[in-house]
Amino acid sequence: MPRIAEVRLPAQPNSPQQQERVNRILRAAARQGAAHGLERVQMQEIAKESGVAIATLYRYFPSKMHLFTGVMRMQIGRIGAEVSQPADGTDPVDAVTDLMLAATKRMLDSPKLAHAMMTSNNAAFHATEAGAHETHLAFKGLILRAARIAEPTPRDEQLVRLIEQSWFGALNSALNGRTTREESEDDIRLSCRLLLPAWSER
Amino acid sequence: MPRIAEVRLPAQPNSPQQQERVNRILRAAARQGAAHGLERVQMQEIAKESGVAIATLYRYFPSKMHLFTGVMRMQIGRIGAEVSQPADGTDPVDAVTDLMLAATKRMLDSPKLAHAMMTSNNAAFHATEAGAHETHLAFKGLILRAARIAEPTPRDEQLVRLIEQSWFGALNSALNGRTTREESEDDIRLSCRLLLPAWSER
Repeated sequence: MPRIAEVRLPAQPNSPQQQERVNRILRAAARQGAAHGLERVQMQEIAKESGVAIATLYRYFPSKMHLFTGVMRMQIGRIGAEVSQPADGTDPVDAVTDLMLAATKRMLDSPKLAHAMMTSNNAAFHATEAGAHETHLAFKGLILRAARIAEPTPRDEQLVRLIEQSWFGALNSALNGRTTREESEDDIRLSCRLLLPAWSER
Repeated sequence: MPRIAEVRLPAQPNSPQQQERVNRILRAAARQGAAHGLERVQMQEIAKESGVAIATLYRYFPSKMHLFTGVMRMQIGRIGAEVSQPADGTDPVDAVTDLMLAATKRMLDSPKLAHAMMTSNNAAFHATEAGAHETHLAFKGLILRAARIAEPTPRDEQLVRLIEQSWFGALNSALNGRTTREESEDDIRLSCRLLLPAWSER
C-alpha cells in the first residue's frame, strides 16, 4: 500500500503547457504502472520518463495515490472518447453493456495498472482526497450518457451505483484470478441485463 | 499491505485441543483487528491475548493474510449459525436478501476488521493461498442454502457470483465512505430483487 494521508494539496495545471506536462506525467505513470505495479513503481522513474523534475511531479501528485487516481481519471476520459454516443433507438441496456465491457477490456488488458488504479482510487475515497470524487462523477457521466439519461431520478442514480458496484466486484474477481476473463465479461453482460431493464422502458 | 507470498504451508489443527487453540487465536485476531486494523495489528499481541507462543501462532497462520482469511472463514460460520434455514415457502429472494444484510451488518459493525478481512482474502486469492477458496465455498454454500437450491445449475452458480460481486462492491463503497450505511443496505436489497427473480420462479 502507498502512504494514504498527505497534507499538501496538489497543484492544478493552469496553462496549456502545464496541462501538457501533467498529461506527459500521467502517460508515463500509466506505462510504468502497467509494467511494474503499484508497489514497485518509482516516482523518480516516472519523473525521468516524462522529462520533469521530481519536485514538479510531487507538486502535481503528492503521492502514488494521487498519481494513479489521476491515471484512472485519464483512462475514463479515454473510454469516453472511444465509446461513441449511442445512436437514437439503441437499447440503453446494450449501450451500457458495451460501455462496461470497453472499460473491462481496458482494465484487464493491463492488470497491474488496473490494480494500481483501483487501490489508489479506493484509498483516495477513504481519505476523501485526490479527486476520487471527480473520477466517480466522470464514470457516472459516461453511464448516464450511454443510457441517454439527461435528468437522472434518485432511482436512476441508484441503478448507476448498482452497475458500478457489480462491475467493481466482477473486475476484482477477475484481477484476483477467481474468475476467468470470459466469465467476468459474461457476468457483466448478465448484470446489465438484470439490473437495467427499467432503463429500456423509460 | 501485509507480505503476500509465504512458502511455508500452515499447520492444520488435528485434535480438539488444537482446534480450541486455533479458535482462541481467531477470536483474539478478530478483536485486535477490529481495534487496530490490518496495518497496525501486531502478531505478538494476538499471540499474547490468545495465550499461545508466537511460534505456535505462525505455525497455524504464517502471515496476517492467512490469519485474517481465517477470521473471515470464522465470521462466515457465525453468519451461517445466526441466519437460520428459511422456512418452507419463504421467497428465495427474501431469504438471500436477509442473509446478505446480516453479512453486511457484521462487516460494517467492525469496519477496520472488515477491511482487514477483505484485503487479506483478496490477497489470498491473488496468491492462490491461505484457504481463500474455502472461504468462497462457504459463503456460496450459505447463499444456496438460503435459496434452498440443493443442485445448482451453471446459471445458478453465475447468479451466486453476481450476488457476491455486487455485495462486495456495495460493501467496498460503504467502507470507503462513498455511500452511507443506509444507502448500501438499500443497494443490496435492490440488487437481490433485480438479480434473483429467477430463483423465485424455480
